[in-house]
Amino acid sequence: MNGTFDFYFDFASPYGYFAATRIDGIAERHGRAVRWHPILLGAIFKVSGMKPVMEQPLRGGYLAHDVPRFARLLGVPLTMPAKAPLNALVASRAYWWLEDVDPAKARDLAKAIYHAHWGEGRDMTTAEQVAEVAEPLGIAVSDLLAGVQNPVVKDRLRAETDEAIRQGVFGAPFIIVDGEAFWGADRLDQVDRWLERGGW
Amino acid sequence: MNGTFDFYFDFASPYGYFAATRIDGIAERHGRAVRWHPILLGAIFKVSGMKPVMEQPLRGGYLAHDVPRFARLLGVPLTMPAKAPLNALVASRAYWWLEDVDPAKARDLAKAIYHAHWGEGRDMTTAEQVAEVAEPLGIAVSDLLAGVQNPVVKDRLRAETDEAIRQGVFGAPFIIVDGEAFWGADRLDQVDRWLERGGW
Repeated sequence: MNGTFDFYFDFASPYGYFAATRIDGIAERHGRAVRWHPILLGAIFKVSGMKPVMEQPLRGGYLAHDVPRFARLLGVPLTMPAKAPLNALVASRAYWWLEDVDPAKARDLAKAIYHAHWGEGRDMTTAEQVAEVAEPLGIAVSDLLAGVQNPVVKDRLRAETDEAIRQGVFGAPFIIVDGEAFWGADRLDQVDRWLERGGW
Repeated sequence: MNGTFDFYFDFASPYGYFAATRIDGIAERHGRAVRWHPILLGAIFKVSGMKPVMEQPLRGGYLAHDVPRFARLLGVPLTMPAKAPLNALVASRAYWWLEDVDPAKARDLAKAIYHAHWGEGRDMTTAEQVAEVAEPLGIAVSDLLAGVQNPVVKDRLRAETDEAIRQGVFGAPFIIVDGEAFWGADRLDQVDRWLERGGW
């Protein structure tokens, strides 16, 4: 039970951002590693018949209040992006392109994208915008621009999203640890406790 | 900021049961009182366009696993009811009938209904089934059977559900404390912290 566990997220979701700021710390505390999986919730919603939360009547107002409140609780920066929801296609491809080459740097890129989009409110739709946050990490802009156009990378994101659906992922953030699924940023305390106790 | 806060729930939801086992303790710890509001989520879903979670593809399996896991974490009894989802119309009317006469006993009845349905797996659809758990609390069966047929009581439940929608309640359990809305049994720790700090 001392292996790697899985963290599924969509860059478009602020709750994924919140989870991303905590998940590595929780894993380290218990001597575990995390495999990060950016996926496209839109593709999953097509299967589940669910709607993006912001499009659901009554819930939109709650989320607009809950998201800043959650950020304050965690003490992480938040700037609501002017352009939302983010189409995370290119950002997710950039992750999977880099993951094959350098998984640790891919994770740094994911954190940088989340920070730029949710911490600073910057749009992360285009390859140029993603390349801008990638460059300080030592990722050549031209490499990234070519990488996200690579058909192999495009297929990889599709395959990762399909595999997530097969694993039962229906929302994000979603964590699967030792076969146990936990859905939502507000379940990270349960993940922490699960790892601590080895289940309950 | 030392007043009563509001707890909305549907007897058909196991997460409402979980919240019901904790909410009074949280309130007492902070010198607060809670107003309990059984409502009918079905009526709210008609407005929101959401589906009951068990009817959503992909999510059903997760919930069947998450509900027992959550019960074990809280250390509360759980028996999945053979007959589900519960139509909580009569149980909710019984609460509102009693609330006018004896609010403390109405809360005891709500806890007894939750315990019978989710703790012991008993069906709570009919007035006779509800009366059976009410009787040990000193509630005359004939009074309850008449009460849930009273048009004033029927109107009261409708009015309470409508008012919940006006307050922005789109799911359950749902807690509104000092104007702050918290949705879900897994947010009770945040409610606890909010009351402790007086916000953040």
